Amino acid sequence: MESLKIIKVGGNIIDNNKALEIFLSQFSSIKGPKVLVHGGGKLATKLAKDMNVPVNMVDGRRITDADTLDIITMVYAGKINKNIVAKLQAYKCNAIGFTGADGNTIVSKKRPVKKIDYGFVGDVKKVNTKAISVLLKNDITPVFCAITHDTNGNLLNTNADTIASELAIELAKTYETELIYCFEKDGVLMSVDDDESVIDFMDTNTYQTLKIRGTFADGMLPKLENCFYALKRGVFKVIIGNPTVISNREQKFTTLFL
Amino acid sequence: MESLKIIKVGGNIIDNNKALEIFLSQFSSIKGPKVLVHGGGKLATKLAKDMNVPVNMVDGRRITDADTLDIITMVYAGKINKNIVAKLQAYKCNAIGFTGADGNTIVSKKRPVKKIDYGFVGDVKKVNTKAISVLLKNDITPVFCAITHDTNGNLLNTNADTIASELAIELAKTYETELIYCFEKDGVLMSVDDDESVIDFMDTNTYQTLKIRGTFADGMLPKLENCFYALKRGVFKVIIGNPTVISNREQKFTTLFL
Repeated sequence: MESLKIIKVGGNIIDNNKALEIFLSQFSSIKGPKVLVHGGGKLATKLAKDMNVPVNMVDGRRITDADTLDIITMVYAGKINKNIVAKLQAYKCNAIGFTGADGNTIVSKKRPVKKIDYGFVGDVKKVNTKAISVLLKNDITPVFCAITHDTNGNLLNTNADTIASELAIELAKTYETELIYCFEKDGVLMSVDDDESVIDFMDTNTYQTLKIRGTFADGMLPKLENCFYALKRGVFKVIIGNPTVISNREQKFTTLFL
Repeated sequence: MESLKIIKVGGNIIDNNKALEIFLSQFSSIKGPKVLVHGGGKLATKLAKDMNVPVNMVDGRRITDADTLDIITMVYAGKINKNIVAKLQAYKCNAIGFTGADGNTIVSKKRPVKKIDYGFVGDVKKVNTKAISVLLKNDITPVFCAITHDTNGNLLNTNADTIASELAIELAKTYETELIYCFEKDGVLMSVDDDESVIDFMDTNTYQTLKIRGTFADGMLPKLENCFYALKRGVFKVIIGNPTVISNREQKFTTLFL
């Protein structure tokens, strides 16, 4: 099996021009097939304020009404995604920007209304890898933003970590797939306040124990759930670290395994 | 040679939800390889107003400063392009949205400052069809908005009619290429005020004669220049008409030839 790297880059790096340039330079240097998934950062909230569209967050998740979906589509799929693609081209990485609607790659279903109506938020139902595979075989790199579609003409807001893990799971059927989550820290921390306390290796048992002890920050928990879910579904390796983890494996980072 | 249709759809149709639905339904029904190029319509101007970014037009062309380029990228490549892609998927047309940065398909050069500084506006230098050809061979339809890139990491605003003709010229090397400009009228009019006065056929000589007589509106002239330029460079056929021209050749429309 050929190996494939799927890299997710978080919003804090997207928001920081210098960090983004370093990341894109590292990403471009990866040999062989690769896929990029990027988060949204704070630009959507800024645009919403400029346009006087109220921002509604519940438990750190954005309530996506029609106006907010438009803003997300403009910022994630427009400004952020296309600027990343243009910059990757400058680094000689031939990239194409994607939402899940493009190539019908990621089909989702509008989240049912229970206690909370999240609005136009989609839970991933199916990943179609045909378009992605065709491009990877031709040395072209897909770059995904956090938007999917329902096949009825509607775009839906979807968590970028989930998009990365779902892509990794589906592509693990044809590639030996490594999933790498890049963010501003060096890895998963044993103590939230100590950036040096990077956990080197973590298996499912350790994860469960530390989770019960309340070791992980609220933002880290769903990310780790995504990671272990991906490992259980056939992803070869999952790594969490800062962008330099792509090229430099002598520094600290976290490797997850079953 | 296999035949290929390149369809440009104008801003007035983009701005009208019902007309856009009719167009997309017609476009989806085309058998065989096809490419869509869409204009921007009035949404960018509306967003600029919402964001208090001044709109500067000179001779009907938008002066593109950095803020305006951001707006155009968000509206053209984000909101309009991705909603078109999602709607095409609903019509079972497997589409992928493109700027010229995606797949390095359309390389342009920032227009030099002479009398007027147009800002981040790009004149097309090179079309790379590799990514497009790979997708067309796999029944996937590229959908282009009016943005290109300079290969140094910068996006540039480029006329959609020009993008359509430049794509057609380059793809004419491998396909028998038909270029169809769809807009709100039935074709090129002999008399601007009479929607019934559609010119059926026009060759280069007739065009030159009518141009000297002042027959064409200001907006039509650069479009026709693009069309005849494309014909001279190997495009098989150019048609100008309303969206139903795609499926119904019994109605009125204009065919251009050398």
